[in-house]
Amino acid sequence: MPVLNLRSDLAAADDLGTQMAEIGRRARAAARKMALASAQAKDIALRTIAECIRSRGPEILRENARDVAAAKAAGHSQALIDRLTLDEKRLAGIADAVEKIGALPDPVGRQLAAIERPNGLLIERIAVPLGVIGVIFEGRPNVTADAGALCLKAGNAAILRAGSDSHRSAMAIAHAMSEGLAASGLPADAIQIVPTRDRAAVGAMLSGLDGCIDVIVPRGGRGLVERVQGEAKVPVFAHLDGICHVYIHGQADLDMARTVLLNSKMRRTGICGAAETLLVDAACARTHLVPLVTALLDAGCAVRGDEAARAADPRVTPASEIDWRTEYLDAVISARVVDGLDAAIDHIETYGSHHTDAIITEDAEAASRFLAEVDSAIVTHNASTQFADGGEFGFGAEIGIATGRMHARGPVGVEQLTTFKYRVHGNGQTRPV
Amino acid sequence: MPVLNLRSDLAAADDLGTQMAEIGRRARAAARKMALASAQAKDIALRTIAECIRSRGPEILRENARDVAAAKAAGHSQALIDRLTLDEKRLAGIADAVEKIGALPDPVGRQLAAIERPNGLLIERIAVPLGVIGVIFEGRPNVTADAGALCLKAGNAAILRAGSDSHRSAMAIAHAMSEGLAASGLPADAIQIVPTRDRAAVGAMLSGLDGCIDVIVPRGGRGLVERVQGEAKVPVFAHLDGICHVYIHGQADLDMARTVLLNSKMRRTGICGAAETLLVDAACARTHLVPLVTALLDAGCAVRGDEAARAADPRVTPASEIDWRTEYLDAVISARVVDGLDAAIDHIETYGSHHTDAIITEDAEAASRFLAEVDSAIVTHNASTQFADGGEFGFGAEIGIATGRMHARGPVGVEQLTTFKYRVHGNGQTRPV
Repeated sequence: MPVLNLRSDLAAADDLGTQMAEIGRRARAAARKMALASAQAKDIALRTIAECIRSRGPEILRENARDVAAAKAAGHSQALIDRLTLDEKRLAGIADAVEKIGALPDPVGRQLAAIERPNGLLIERIAVPLGVIGVIFEGRPNVTADAGALCLKAGNAAILRAGSDSHRSAMAIAHAMSEGLAASGLPADAIQIVPTRDRAAVGAMLSGLDGCIDVIVPRGGRGLVERVQGEAKVPVFAHLDGICHVYIHGQADLDMARTVLLNSKMRRTGICGAAETLLVDAACARTHLVPLVTALLDAGCAVRGDEAARAADPRVTPASEIDWRTEYLDAVISARVVDGLDAAIDHIETYGSHHTDAIITEDAEAASRFLAEVDSAIVTHNASTQFADGGEFGFGAEIGIATGRMHARGPVGVEQLTTFKYRVHGNGQTRPV
Repeated sequence: MPVLNLRSDLAAADDLGTQMAEIGRRARAAARKMALASAQAKDIALRTIAECIRSRGPEILRENARDVAAAKAAGHSQALIDRLTLDEKRLAGIADAVEKIGALPDPVGRQLAAIERPNGLLIERIAVPLGVIGVIFEGRPNVTADAGALCLKAGNAAILRAGSDSHRSAMAIAHAMSEGLAASGLPADAIQIVPTRDRAAVGAMLSGLDGCIDVIVPRGGRGLVERVQGEAKVPVFAHLDGICHVYIHGQADLDMARTVLLNSKMRRTGICGAAETLLVDAACARTHLVPLVTALLDAGCAVRGDEAARAADPRVTPASEIDWRTEYLDAVISARVVDGLDAAIDHIETYGSHHTDAIITEDAEAASRFLAEVDSAIVTHNASTQFADGGEFGFGAEIGIATGRMHARGPVGVEQLTTFKYRVHGNGQTRPV
């Protein structure tokens, strides 16, 4: 009965639309209250939320077990099931992380600038919350608590949409968070979780819920980020790729180059700050190329190289054009010899993703040019690309890493989850005609 | 011959697409060079541009005369023709403004934060240019030079699209700017002017020219801003409305209230920072309402009021719901009595446009609550709303005022035309597993 099906689809769409609009409305109203919460009130609320996550532990683990059972029944990979599974230790880690976010300095109310004008006006630029942050995530259920807590710490409301695998776990964690907010006198509505697996809910969030979402943060694989960046009608904090480079300059110390390169590539291969391409300057290739390529290969990393890299070791396989644009997220690296600093920068600007790029050199001038001319969110000199992380930057925690140019760039911590307003203090000033 | 017409339309579209893509490509390449220009090089270039505008004055005035003649032939209003017309004095003003922008402090390269980590890493957050800024404007041809110079000062390239009325004037000014850039060793391509009146060029810009535009700034009427905000695939710095409020709190000094109110409304009625609604607290309505309403009426301002305001003076006409949402941009104001600070804030949050709102009061606590709780880009205490201007904020000049929450909010000066990157300085640090 196609007519009836159509009608019930429409009814479902209407319900979802109404439901999502209500979520947006509640989040916006809660955000107005959160924006005025004191540093102490937010700190207490986050500690209370941590307590609620602990006390609701059995319930969260029960819901998580249902998610895990469903994932197993659906035949998902062991890796996915591992990421999804919570136990008491992981749950304790989630609660501790929320408490730690509560203890961070309050990013709201900071005076970012003060301007005294000749007419006596005092103009202050003051940090205020962004408003309502939409977080769309996949996989690990801890993102519910982490991302939600970061949003709250910065005085925002959050609308969270979990992937369907972690839906039940995320719902249970979010309810514990709302409970903690209410128990400490802040609006329970400041944490909204989308209660349906319907993928149309993602589309509704990307439309901005009629002005009720100020920014979207996708946390997940390339497919999710690509969809969000392509369809969102509101700003997005994200990175699509982390094609990070390590450039060994002619004046690089070989031991340092080897140590930093191995850490950049192999410490963890699946994170966005992992190096994907090695550039060795022609000026040091004769001495540095063989030891560096050998070290990678010996550490279990496959190397795909240009002619020079292939000549360094028979285990190196040929790189094709597509390799320079590939984020392997695995124990694989592309490698080539470049003819000087300009060629290295050109390669990075042509093939890179403006995430994190490193130069290894003892030459201060070359380092300075590299740091200035490589147009990436993070540029490092004699330091691993794997430092691309809010925790390593001293931000306490991060909601993600952004490679866009607007507002937030690099690790997005609580400071970047604020915006600002101008407060103008006068004593009757008028503007001359 | 519809088939032939169709073909020629397609050919034109292809040409436009190719042309716009080329403009984007050139701007992006120029932006990379501009980003590395020293403060001194940019200052010299802007002085040279000012010289070129002066020396090409006769040509610019000739092209402007053709624009004016076309506008007259098209039967445009005298107001439009006035705004469009350049003379030697106005042209000198344009050149002087460019020189003044050149003399501003360089916003690029500022250290916005420095973080020393326990592992010895020094992490700097450094201001860098945004990249390529698209400016779409109507009316006054001076926007070509003003907006272009602000973009250049912040190390960006600009793609300028003039309204069709000022097309010839804008082309002549833009060519003088490119000439000035080339003469001082910076890329002439850093100023791109769209050489066609074809409105499809605007659509191409709003699509972001395949990643070659980082942000769009519309300068013009509500229709333009609405189209840009609705269609742009890239971030936009703009405000749609300036529905600014003056709230006379119960503890307001009457003389100050009258002076600031008259200035907020009547200094200039056509600018976005002009007040559009007067809110008088019930606590002082008995003493303040009549003198304030009378002062407005006597100054030639029409008043549309609620019952209380109408009772204050027979010349007050009734306000309808729509008045509270109207930006008159004229000598008209809506007026009502509100019952306390919370009611005033509720009115502003319900009907306002988050641009600029003022409280007049001698009560510091009420002022502090208003400044904190009114969620507008600019909030003032005992100061005219007409201070909403980059020049008045000490920014030297502004490209516009933004009411969005991301990146730039309030007057957008050269600082807001920058973003940042992180520079990480190490001596071989690796991240522990």
